[in-house]
Amino acid sequence: MEEKLQELKQHLTEVNDLDAAAGLLYWDQSTYMPPGGAPARARQLSTLRRLSHDKFTDPAIGKLLDELQPYADSLPVDHDDAALLRVARRFYERETKVPSSFAAEMSAHAVEAYQVWTAARPDNDFARVQPYLEKTLELSRQLANYFPGYDHIADPLINYSDYGMQAATLRQIFADLRAALVPMVQAITAQEPADDSCLRHYYPETDQLAFGLDVIKDFGYDFERGRQDKTHHPFATKFSIGDVRITTRAKDHYLAECLFSTLHESGHAMYEQGLNREYEGLPLGRGTSSGVHESQSRLWENVVGRSRGFWEHYYPALQQTFPEQLRGVSLDEFYRAINKVERSLIRTDADEVTYNLHVMLRFDFELALLEGEMVIADLPDAWNARFEEDFGITPPDQRDGVLQDVHWFAGRIGGAFQGYTLGNILSAQFYAAALDAHPDIPTQIGQGEFGTLHTWLRENIYQHGRKYDPADLVARVTGQPLTIAPYINYLRTKYGELYTL
Amino acid sequence: MEEKLQELKQHLTEVNDLDAAAGLLYWDQSTYMPPGGAPARARQLSTLRRLSHDKFTDPAIGKLLDELQPYADSLPVDHDDAALLRVARRFYERETKVPSSFAAEMSAHAVEAYQVWTAARPDNDFARVQPYLEKTLELSRQLANYFPGYDHIADPLINYSDYGMQAATLRQIFADLRAALVPMVQAITAQEPADDSCLRHYYPETDQLAFGLDVIKDFGYDFERGRQDKTHHPFATKFSIGDVRITTRAKDHYLAECLFSTLHESGHAMYEQGLNREYEGLPLGRGTSSGVHESQSRLWENVVGRSRGFWEHYYPALQQTFPEQLRGVSLDEFYRAINKVERSLIRTDADEVTYNLHVMLRFDFELALLEGEMVIADLPDAWNARFEEDFGITPPDQRDGVLQDVHWFAGRIGGAFQGYTLGNILSAQFYAAALDAHPDIPTQIGQGEFGTLHTWLRENIYQHGRKYDPADLVARVTGQPLTIAPYINYLRTKYGELYTL
Repeated sequence: MEEKLQELKQHLTEVNDLDAAAGLLYWDQSTYMPPGGAPARARQLSTLRRLSHDKFTDPAIGKLLDELQPYADSLPVDHDDAALLRVARRFYERETKVPSSFAAEMSAHAVEAYQVWTAARPDNDFARVQPYLEKTLELSRQLANYFPGYDHIADPLINYSDYGMQAATLRQIFADLRAALVPMVQAITAQEPADDSCLRHYYPETDQLAFGLDVIKDFGYDFERGRQDKTHHPFATKFSIGDVRITTRAKDHYLAECLFSTLHESGHAMYEQGLNREYEGLPLGRGTSSGVHESQSRLWENVVGRSRGFWEHYYPALQQTFPEQLRGVSLDEFYRAINKVERSLIRTDADEVTYNLHVMLRFDFELALLEGEMVIADLPDAWNARFEEDFGITPPDQRDGVLQDVHWFAGRIGGAFQGYTLGNILSAQFYAAALDAHPDIPTQIGQGEFGTLHTWLRENIYQHGRKYDPADLVARVTGQPLTIAPYINYLRTKYGELYTL
Repeated sequence: MEEKLQELKQHLTEVNDLDAAAGLLYWDQSTYMPPGGAPARARQLSTLRRLSHDKFTDPAIGKLLDELQPYADSLPVDHDDAALLRVARRFYERETKVPSSFAAEMSAHAVEAYQVWTAARPDNDFARVQPYLEKTLELSRQLANYFPGYDHIADPLINYSDYGMQAATLRQIFADLRAALVPMVQAITAQEPADDSCLRHYYPETDQLAFGLDVIKDFGYDFERGRQDKTHHPFATKFSIGDVRITTRAKDHYLAECLFSTLHESGHAMYEQGLNREYEGLPLGRGTSSGVHESQSRLWENVVGRSRGFWEHYYPALQQTFPEQLRGVSLDEFYRAINKVERSLIRTDADEVTYNLHVMLRFDFELALLEGEMVIADLPDAWNARFEEDFGITPPDQRDGVLQDVHWFAGRIGGAFQGYTLGNILSAQFYAAALDAHPDIPTQIGQGEFGTLHTWLRENIYQHGRKYDPADLVARVTGQPLTIAPYINYLRTKYGELYTL
């Protein structure tokens, strides 16, 4: 058995190494690659991904998994080997159920749809992408149907990123959240808006970058095992547990962009840096779901990084870095500015209170489209109607309306958005559990100390990687299933102090 | 046939893509990778190389090559497809003749030998590396013996990097060259040495880097398809014809380091950037040999970059960049400084006149070791004796003597060094042919214009990649076989003006 297990691990590590190489090719493409490298790079990425898929779906892996099943069954459920075999089998079955020819068709279509979208978006031309989206929807349905036995056709798609989560459950969670959020947004936006003009002076990029790096060093992001570079869209990426990198971007005239994107990505990266080293190169060595991953980025970005305590410590340093720009701006004014709530068009720019309404809109449309309750041609009007309903504003164009997100143009319709809101919910639920264990965490944050929080997260969440499925992890860490109560409580408390609620 | 050819090309491109990915992993490791990434990176590189080897030695490729042989035979010898099939078959046979288990043993040994060397070199401890070198020698002999029918046991090893070249031929060429060089070195070093103290002031790195970039932009290195980064050891690397990068390093107190390493690597890179785009991803898409490659780096570094005409144009700009450091230093003084000839210990730091003596010493030892005329234990004494004979100085330690080069500790003994001297010889032979075609090239260089030379090189050398074997290329471009006459003539003329010869 030991020998077969080693053989399986060796095989899985090869797959991992191909994926890591593809990850580096992508990172390089986003950071340092000269423009002339683009055509060959696309080909190389597709070669690596195809080889990885071929290697992972090799029947030899299936055979090893079968042979090792009695061993897995003999182990306690939370034994590392049991978890490895469970997760490897799940992925193996997922990949082998989808014929290679279909996967190839889907990814070729995604490349084409993405290209059309990049040209159509600036032109506000939904009509041009419509046939591509229709094909995407058809392919997404077909993909789901390779996993028969679902309750809702979106379930298999949701399971790609948030394993164990179902459309019906999400609908209920989101409805409850929505019921709490809509009145909160209405109450806040009826009041005098926060003044965030102090964030919109000229802030030299170099100083913005340096300040962000100082903060995440304090958080405990390990620069011996990571680095930060600039890209058009910020992201975190892992090549091994010893090499987890982040990227950021800066706007000369908007201080919040670079700083909070750095904090956000450092949350993703600390999760991956905190993995059990034994999981290196194996399927367990990765955050357990899109929602749990996002909970870690949101926790550091928002729960910590937009808290008043945090800025009690850092605001003097920020003022010292930008003395001209922040002269005469009090801590309270600054704190209000970085937590300004407003009805805005763009999901990625939205504040904590309105953000989830953007997500739910997309999630509901995904379900309706997959169910056939809605057709692609309805999207532009439906988008604007729902936007009017939720935000009281109508998008002035499609570019910043129905065409704003890449997700539907880069893969599939279904399962693309729920992780963001799950992440927000879980960031508060996990943080509440951390406070239960260590009530002094807020005091420490107010002193720029994050060791207790970071250690708690590493011990309870980071190190486990995929050993626990998302629902099991949440129950284990918080003693409860996923619940919105801590998140609502967090928002009510925080925004109740900033506004009259 | 067309279909089979496409299938072969597709297969070869996959191998190329794995190699390109490995190349990027190595580039990243040398430039931006955080230290924590090292262990997994070594594993990932070895996975990619193994998969590339497995894929290339897949019997399916052999079968396609066999099936396509009649097609190849039906074509004119300089047809692209004929060249592709010829080169692919050569590599396929080379790779399949060596058992995978032996290749794995050899590369595992190289990793170990390299690690021992990096520790033993600072300690001047040849004894520690001796058993590893003995094993390397034994493995190198075994490797050669997978290619029976050679005239000299070094021939198969030389053929890895300089295809078609033989030990006997090289011995004769090197003996002739040596007969011309030794008296030249003696004559020069008997005279007052050049004063290069002007190169040894403090030169800020940023300005050094910027100046070098300006020069190679003028050369025609295409930054849309390349970039320069800093590494411990400079190198050029290609991920595709659209992405050929160089690296450099700078010394604060030695102006010649960064500049000439940039010029050198740009020569390698312009060769690869100048390839026929049709060869992208295929075995033809690469410089044809180590010697021809080195001829291009040496041509731009030395024949152009250390010429008086070149500095007539660039010296004023250099003085403007470094006004303090070069105040009162005349063009003639500067020109003498960058062409200082001296008996020095380190090959990589050697001037144009003495450089080849360093190479020949190593080459002769490689042959003697492979022949069994010499044993590893003899190396330290033999090194010092030969050094005394050729340079009139004895290395004060092993670190800067027998232990100075990585080559024998990173692979094999045999075929590692001849390319450097072949490159020097060919740089002059090719340049002479360029002047025959365009006698105004030196005048243009004196005006900072390199278009004629670059275009001539691209048309005659760069674009062909491996389409022509090295000897065929030399004959085609210069109308003669490889000959040392232009090189001797170049050195005599240049150094005859700088010294009394």
